[in-house]
Amino acid sequence: MTTQTLVTSPQDVRRHIRSGVWRGVTSGVAPGYVQANLAILPKELAFDFLLFCQRNPKPCPLLEVVESGSVEPSLTAPGSDIRTDTPGYRIYENGEFVAEVDSLVPCWRDDLVSFLLGCSFSFETAMTDAGIPMRHQEMGCNVSMYITNIETTPAGQFAGPMVVSMRPVNREQIVRAVQVTSRFPATHGAPVHIGDPGAIGIQDISRPDFGDPVEIHPGEEPVFWACGVTPQAVALNCKPSLMITHAPGKMFITDRRDADYAVL
Amino acid sequence: MTTQTLVTSPQDVRRHIRSGVWRGVTSGVAPGYVQANLAILPKELAFDFLLFCQRNPKPCPLLEVVESGSVEPSLTAPGSDIRTDTPGYRIYENGEFVAEVDSLVPCWRDDLVSFLLGCSFSFETAMTDAGIPMRHQEMGCNVSMYITNIETTPAGQFAGPMVVSMRPVNREQIVRAVQVTSRFPATHGAPVHIGDPGAIGIQDISRPDFGDPVEIHPGEEPVFWACGVTPQAVALNCKPSLMITHAPGKMFITDRRDADYAVL
Repeated sequence: MTTQTLVTSPQDVRRHIRSGVWRGVTSGVAPGYVQANLAILPKELAFDFLLFCQRNPKPCPLLEVVESGSVEPSLTAPGSDIRTDTPGYRIYENGEFVAEVDSLVPCWRDDLVSFLLGCSFSFETAMTDAGIPMRHQEMGCNVSMYITNIETTPAGQFAGPMVVSMRPVNREQIVRAVQVTSRFPATHGAPVHIGDPGAIGIQDISRPDFGDPVEIHPGEEPVFWACGVTPQAVALNCKPSLMITHAPGKMFITDRRDADYAVL
Repeated sequence: MTTQTLVTSPQDVRRHIRSGVWRGVTSGVAPGYVQANLAILPKELAFDFLLFCQRNPKPCPLLEVVESGSVEPSLTAPGSDIRTDTPGYRIYENGEFVAEVDSLVPCWRDDLVSFLLGCSFSFETAMTDAGIPMRHQEMGCNVSMYITNIETTPAGQFAGPMVVSMRPVNREQIVRAVQVTSRFPATHGAPVHIGDPGAIGIQDISRPDFGDPVEIHPGEEPVFWACGVTPQAVALNCKPSLMITHAPGKMFITDRRDADYAVL
């Protein structure tokens, strides 16, 4: 299935993913609908991870938690199945990557709790709509991400530095970028830092820890947002016996619209 | 100690409460600082109650969770003690009220988890500042509260109807009331309903389920906000072996300012 023929309702996209007809990255798919980062953990870690998300809402904006014993995100995607409706999954054991798979049906356990977390696609759409260009999209690469010296607020065994994404913004558009993204606290919200990368512990802006480097043009400042890689990095630090995430770029697509999560 | 001599920093107020010098209701105390509803439950219920709050942020806006083994809300009130720094507590066993006490030191257990939830004082201040009068304050009585037919989103054994508070607002000020309270999602946020009480299952607006009745003047509509009584009512429905709350009107005062929680 090519992007030309890709149906655009979340239900249809999930159906095509589930049946194996389509397994691509989800950027630009079902435009206007909220996509989610996925983190799946055993129940014994669920309270502490939920509390970690509550204490760190900017990097960990919770959209839904699917309790152990259930595989359906019934609030944001009724009728869906968390085990089959994401185009790809990564499995980690004791903090180590062991496999990338198309389906979680073979490895599913009844004690697993699924966390759906907001991702930056929603606020990138809002910025693009506001006339603020996204450099990584212009360059056709992944956004630049960095490990900072900003500590998250720990919960139980979960602790570690915040990971941020960076987008260069023209100085005349920085205020607008703050305003536009502030409306979307469920998808990382307002920036955590503007300008000097060294102030948040980033030594070399041209060498991101994750993703690709992007050009910063004259007249632009780097603007930094809390990134959904944070909870994955923090959780893997704990070396949980089992952790499952979405594969990079292959998000879970919900039935909720970006606008459903906008404040004011 | 009279209100004239009442010191106004949260730290000093808590010190006077802890030492027994002062034990009054906290309305108007430490103005500008966020006050919290308190719900304390055994650890075995903590994940489900935390999830209930995550799923129902309007009635259950979480400010902080103090994990089992700790008695200090270190994020919102460092140096405080949740067992002694609230002017009064109510103890419930198996869903039944058993005692109102000044201190939790004698009955504290290491498996208790404390939940601090935003209360409506913050947004009432914001509305008053915006020139929207609060009828229950004019009348010197408690706000009117009602059990509605709006179901909360269940989590584990926690389920039940939403409780709302009602404030009459002049029709010309309703839009402003929505705008002003929308800025405070951490303290119940925007209204859940405007106008016709019957539409949310309230049969007789003159007979609130909790609090006192207030007058609705010609030209005013009743405006309804999600109420912090909801999580207490829902939790007591489950008849937990032990649940502790603040005594009515006697809140826990944090070091955070109302403005710290304002969005935009």
